[in-house]
Amino acid sequence: MNPEAKLAAFTSADYAARMARVVDDAQAAGLDGVLVTPGPDLVWLTGYQPTAITERLTMLVLTPDAPPSLLVPILERADAEAAAGAPGIQISDWNDGTDPYQVASGLFRQDGRFGISDSAWAMHLLGLQDNAPETRYHSISEALPMMRAIKDAEELARLALAGAAADATYYEIVNLQFAGRRESEVAADLARLLREFGHEQVDFTIVGSGPNGAKPHHESGERVIQVGDAVVLDFGGLMNGYGSDTTRTVCVGESTAEQRDVHEIVRQAQQAAFDVVAPGVPCQEVDRVARAVISDAGYGREFIHRTGHGIGVTTHEPPYMVEGEEQLLQPGMCFSIEPGIYLADRFGVRIEDIVTVTEIGGERFNNTDRTLRIVE
Amino acid sequence: MNPEAKLAAFTSADYAARMARVVDDAQAAGLDGVLVTPGPDLVWLTGYQPTAITERLTMLVLTPDAPPSLLVPILERADAEAAAGAPGIQISDWNDGTDPYQVASGLFRQDGRFGISDSAWAMHLLGLQDNAPETRYHSISEALPMMRAIKDAEELARLALAGAAADATYYEIVNLQFAGRRESEVAADLARLLREFGHEQVDFTIVGSGPNGAKPHHESGERVIQVGDAVVLDFGGLMNGYGSDTTRTVCVGESTAEQRDVHEIVRQAQQAAFDVVAPGVPCQEVDRVARAVISDAGYGREFIHRTGHGIGVTTHEPPYMVEGEEQLLQPGMCFSIEPGIYLADRFGVRIEDIVTVTEIGGERFNNTDRTLRIVE
Repeated sequence: MNPEAKLAAFTSADYAARMARVVDDAQAAGLDGVLVTPGPDLVWLTGYQPTAITERLTMLVLTPDAPPSLLVPILERADAEAAAGAPGIQISDWNDGTDPYQVASGLFRQDGRFGISDSAWAMHLLGLQDNAPETRYHSISEALPMMRAIKDAEELARLALAGAAADATYYEIVNLQFAGRRESEVAADLARLLREFGHEQVDFTIVGSGPNGAKPHHESGERVIQVGDAVVLDFGGLMNGYGSDTTRTVCVGESTAEQRDVHEIVRQAQQAAFDVVAPGVPCQEVDRVARAVISDAGYGREFIHRTGHGIGVTTHEPPYMVEGEEQLLQPGMCFSIEPGIYLADRFGVRIEDIVTVTEIGGERFNNTDRTLRIVE
Repeated sequence: MNPEAKLAAFTSADYAARMARVVDDAQAAGLDGVLVTPGPDLVWLTGYQPTAITERLTMLVLTPDAPPSLLVPILERADAEAAAGAPGIQISDWNDGTDPYQVASGLFRQDGRFGISDSAWAMHLLGLQDNAPETRYHSISEALPMMRAIKDAEELARLALAGAAADATYYEIVNLQFAGRRESEVAADLARLLREFGHEQVDFTIVGSGPNGAKPHHESGERVIQVGDAVVLDFGGLMNGYGSDTTRTVCVGESTAEQRDVHEIVRQAQQAAFDVVAPGVPCQEVDRVARAVISDAGYGREFIHRTGHGIGVTTHEPPYMVEGEEQLLQPGMCFSIEPGIYLADRFGVRIEDIVTVTEIGGERFNNTDRTLRIVE
């Protein structure tokens, strides 16, 4: 399986078009520009990913008044110039021992309103604020929450391939031994399989067996999996730069009536939420539909997280399927639908697919069997 | 090699002592407390490392008025409660769909001055600022730069072990083939060796051959290494939770007089900087001494970065050996000394050791040969 061979790399024209669109969107949102630090926003806008995200300021400045401008530490300059998006960007640098915020101040209005990457370091934001107290900042997720949310055809192709690789991983893992092995061993198998099926990065391999399954973000541990356990398997990472994220819950050797009942409620909640996906539907409606199924079955208090999150160059991004999110779904948005029920100290069940919005409804990038599977 | 077996795990008493000391230091610095988000500060203070650092607010609040308090998303609560430092911390939670900044506001004075982790997300800082405009924030690296800088005996033991494992990696890598292999292949060998010698995390494996060695942060690429190349090898990661970071520059098959001359200048600069290390010496003096050797040899403009950075639970942290850093060295501080000369489009040389300050001078955690080595 070598799917990356089929994908054309993003070009400097692709990146230039994204940067231009963000400038337009920022103006429409009443901003004077956008400041982008290393991480998913910068990768998506420029293809540039520094070796490490550090205390040294690296910042892309997008404003309507000037071409895109990237400030980098001088020792990163050569790598920045090699990025795919670099031809459309003016690169400048600063040197250790000088004040990078002072240098940056020449790149944008010092009395404007700017969006800034969610994950920009607080020390950098404070440096900018101290240097220009009149300037106002808003996180991109607040000011331009949908900046990366609508995927184009090339991005959808990558997300579909990542989903298929995650599905292949699931179909392999259920043939392996569970009973008598540690969660951490099954997790290592998940990571190995994701890589074998093409992922360049594994972000999480949650194996929550028995009571550990009732902790939604339990990663994996030294617990030995037992016959009779429900086991939550939630795994994903990046492939060709785009994310996968899927969850299935299996039972080991046998299942109880309660496990089957809870699993079926979660399955119905997940299906109902999927069925409501369509352009124009508010994000919170996806959450409400899933939650209603679970609440009606008497487990509302045991569904302790939102129903989903967006996915793209990260495995967690807007749009969020959560109460209060009134953003309307649009074709090209991609997100998880992952309701769950968590019975403290006993077991948990979660079922998760990545879904994209089409012109007429929703389409899943994960298509493995959603009925309760018995593993050995 | 199983050195972790010799190390006692940090206890809740260790973490409680660190938290208490930080509260004292914060008061002495005129702060009303410290806000700590996931990352190295939180690991060092509590032993808690969430599965992922995300848009969901997780924050430790340290103030003189109350016991340590940790706010977590409800779905992370069980994992947070399992952290080694948890017994000394009051844990509270918030739920998706509610405003975490509103919840957090009950945990600290809404008109105070607080240190906040350097790498806290800008979106969280902006959320806190919007919720309580009277509150003032300073990055920990500005307000309490030496918070994690002085290592205790248990930490020094871990750093020494990590350094020894990096040294073992170097002694193995120089016996492997360089000429005719890609940089990325040598980098993969470095990563494998670091793990074999006990690292649980590999942070960087820089292999800069020929002209790529002139880019200090070039990681590794598809260039095939040639006879006659100088090759910069800069690698490190975490072992038992503490960092390694060492650099040697080798030549492949043969060396030119210029390569030998430049290497010798860098070696002398590195030695001179090491020789000046002692309690009471300003950090910038370490940089000045290294820079003087290189400038006197006519390569001042080709030494384009500071001389060093601290190391501990991260591989990049205060104290920085840089012009303008007047902080005085104290026993227990640990940092790199890594001068370099970068001849654009031709080659680079860097030599780096981790050094700790003792009562009488400096001591290296890296002790591999610093003369120019010829590899095959």
